Amino acid sequence: MALRAAGRQSLVDTVVDALRAQLTAGEWAVGDRIPTEHALAEQLQVGRNTVREAVRVLVHAGMLRSRQGEGTFVVSCADPGEIMRGVQRAGVRDVLELRIALEAEGARLAALRHEPADIARMREILAAQRGLERQHELYADYDVDFHIAVVEAAHNAALSATYRWFSSSVREALVTSLSDERMPFIDDGPHEALVDAIASGDPEVAERTARALLDVPKRAVDALLAEG
Amino acid sequence: MALRAAGRQSLVDTVVDALRAQLTAGEWAVGDRIPTEHALAEQLQVGRNTVREAVRVLVHAGMLRSRQGEGTFVVSCADPGEIMRGVQRAGVRDVLELRIALEAEGARLAALRHEPADIARMREILAAQRGLERQHELYADYDVDFHIAVVEAAHNAALSATYRWFSSSVREALVTSLSDERMPFIDDGPHEALVDAIASGDPEVAERTARALLDVPKRAVDALLAEG
Repeated sequence: MALRAAGRQSLVDTVVDALRAQLTAGEWAVGDRIPTEHALAEQLQVGRNTVREAVRVLVHAGMLRSRQGEGTFVVSCADPGEIMRGVQRAGVRDVLELRIALEAEGARLAALRHEPADIARMREILAAQRGLERQHELYADYDVDFHIAVVEAAHNAALSATYRWFSSSVREALVTSLSDERMPFIDDGPHEALVDAIASGDPEVAERTARALLDVPKRAVDALLAEG
Repeated sequence: MALRAAGRQSLVDTVVDALRAQLTAGEWAVGDRIPTEHALAEQLQVGRNTVREAVRVLVHAGMLRSRQGEGTFVVSCADPGEIMRGVQRAGVRDVLELRIALEAEGARLAALRHEPADIARMREILAAQRGLERQHELYADYDVDFHIAVVEAAHNAALSATYRWFSSSVREALVTSLSDERMPFIDDGPHEALVDAIASGDPEVAERTARALLDVPKRAVDALLAEG
């Protein structure tokens, strides 16, 4: 099979697409070593430099990893670029529901594992945010920081990484919602209540309080969607 | 500032790192247009081809998007490669807790939104998996497929994309756990119970059943960690 550049796409992009297709199709599993640069160049009938560049793209995307002298290994068969675009194409309701999933569990675990510094950080952000309600961009920055602080208090690396990755979509949805008269504004009260619930150390109460906070915009979005 | 290739890293990698640092530092916000190839080449004192290659890397990683004739725009300030590595460095406990977050909420929403085909798919996978308990790799494939089917029945694009992205870590943890005598084996029973709970249409019951299923390995992991 000789690959050719299609339309405005460069040959490197075409090789990236070909390798990614093999990865997402599960042709190579996580942990497998992929064929050498030389073998791939032969298989795809392109130059070794083109293969090297394409592999670099997939290393940066987190799908492959190169180990000096050992070769290149599969880290993930999922394409993070495509997934990020998927989350961004998802509607406000979907983003809100993903937030509920991550933040309700985050608050539950935070109640069990928080350190005093975590609680101090949350209160600090709420204090800094006070009075900025009309500056939507800035207010959204603080709000995202607050919710990141809640999730980080769970001291779970996988949860934190996923929430951070997703937080730029959260921020975008927040800015939109702050400028939308039909969306409820959530003031300090429920945020302070969430900090208190986490500080109390009761996971059930913390989860319930996190859910209650996000249930307000969720019900508003559901109502708007039902209106059509 | 003139960038130079450091050690075994190529100049393109160095430019990728420089641009990514500006993105993760929030120097450019989501939606912003980044400077032109020409301006970046001048700023970093490298050739335009090097800049073009570096931008390509970040487009594939889902951080930038190029629009024909309009320029290159910021899609996300989070680095998916780094986050994927973060999730993979996270321990078994962390991955399990992230699963609980996504699957408990997934099951809750699936109870409300599933279609008959979703339930049929879950039962089909459980039937195909029966008797394969000793073939760990194959068993894990079916198990991951089952849990993806549960999350997909929520019909939430953001939740599905995140769960799929994360499912290769789930698979790895499963294979390890299946080969570990100290970890409990979860048979058909709780899986069938979860399908029934989702099919019943009651979100509370579905969430509780999803939690109960994952609570078994969670308690085993917590006990192993407590032993040290």
